[in-house]
Amino acid sequence: MSDEVTLYYNPRSRAQMAHYALEEVGAPYKLVHIDLEKGENRKPDFLKINPMGKIPTIVHRDTVVTEAAAIIGYLADAFPAAGLTPALDDPRRGTMLRWLVFGASSFEPALVDTMMKRDPVNKMMAGWGDWDDVLGALEVMLDPGPWVLGDQFSAADIYVGAELAWAKSFGAPGLTERPKLLAYIDRITTRPAYQRTIGAVG
Amino acid sequence: MSDEVTLYYNPRSRAQMAHYALEEVGAPYKLVHIDLEKGENRKPDFLKINPMGKIPTIVHRDTVVTEAAAIIGYLADAFPAAGLTPALDDPRRGTMLRWLVFGASSFEPALVDTMMKRDPVNKMMAGWGDWDDVLGALEVMLDPGPWVLGDQFSAADIYVGAELAWAKSFGAPGLTERPKLLAYIDRITTRPAYQRTIGAVG
Repeated sequence: MSDEVTLYYNPRSRAQMAHYALEEVGAPYKLVHIDLEKGENRKPDFLKINPMGKIPTIVHRDTVVTEAAAIIGYLADAFPAAGLTPALDDPRRGTMLRWLVFGASSFEPALVDTMMKRDPVNKMMAGWGDWDDVLGALEVMLDPGPWVLGDQFSAADIYVGAELAWAKSFGAPGLTERPKLLAYIDRITTRPAYQRTIGAVG
Repeated sequence: MSDEVTLYYNPRSRAQMAHYALEEVGAPYKLVHIDLEKGENRKPDFLKINPMGKIPTIVHRDTVVTEAAAIIGYLADAFPAAGLTPALDDPRRGTMLRWLVFGASSFEPALVDTMMKRDPVNKMMAGWGDWDDVLGALEVMLDPGPWVLGDQFSAADIYVGAELAWAKSFGAPGLTERPKLLAYIDRITTRPAYQRTIGAVG
């Protein structure tokens, strides 16, 4: 079976993060362009692959994977030569999963609430708290740094790092006052794989 | 090093899902009760463990893991004798990760938006769409069923199944019209591990 990964992609979307991950893990891949302005993500052919009509979506070995954090964690496991994930019996795997999921479960909804100026959510009801909580937690994530797992760059950095860079590019508040996060964003955005993908789109 | 898992827990919280997972994977564990009404989750000692002040939070082999989906995926890997996770080179691992993360990234925020009657979110900006999209995707997830991975019960069922049962217990709309999801909830809530944990609390 071919090992090639198909990425349903648009450069003006979060699919950029999966593109970046493919370069970090060194996977063979092809991009299938999805024209969001023409609503190609809501057409029946695409909804058969992902009923949520979302990109990034990948297909690898006849299996569909959606959700950016899942795609990035999956790719790190499927292409182990890049060394971007701890072994299954390594407790640091818990740290990696923690922050991958945090990116999806807390970072994303808190960022959307902030950028869309939605009313704050009840913290007992919704786990993501607010944007300030999230930025504070990310500073703790980088203690001691420079990466989520200390010296080892991992799948968690690909996702959370690209999300942070994305938030900064949209002018998300609170970042300029946090030099630790700004330095982390610089470490991510100067990586060759980032520059060949997200960085090349600008 | 002890293999015991410490779960910071309150029976009236999403920490129930992690308790249920501990029973499914057969891990040795102890519960540390966190009194949410007294704000013990916001006290300095607990914030040192999880700066978001959230439960469930576990500590295993000196490593902190937070976010229910990450905890459940981690436990399935850390206690492989239960057979609740595909091997690293099995493409079904992508399916499992996909729905674990979907529970955290789409199911949870769409449920919160619905239950709190928040204004709908722009679907291009936020990946979770709306509650109806999520329920439709979960029906696709169960095709062919009976579990996320077909015949194999896995970590994804623990999380998404418990979330669905939780949504039903709060009267989330749209479930009574979807017999496929109701039957899945029944399959989850009649499992012995569920009945020993979430089911026993009522």
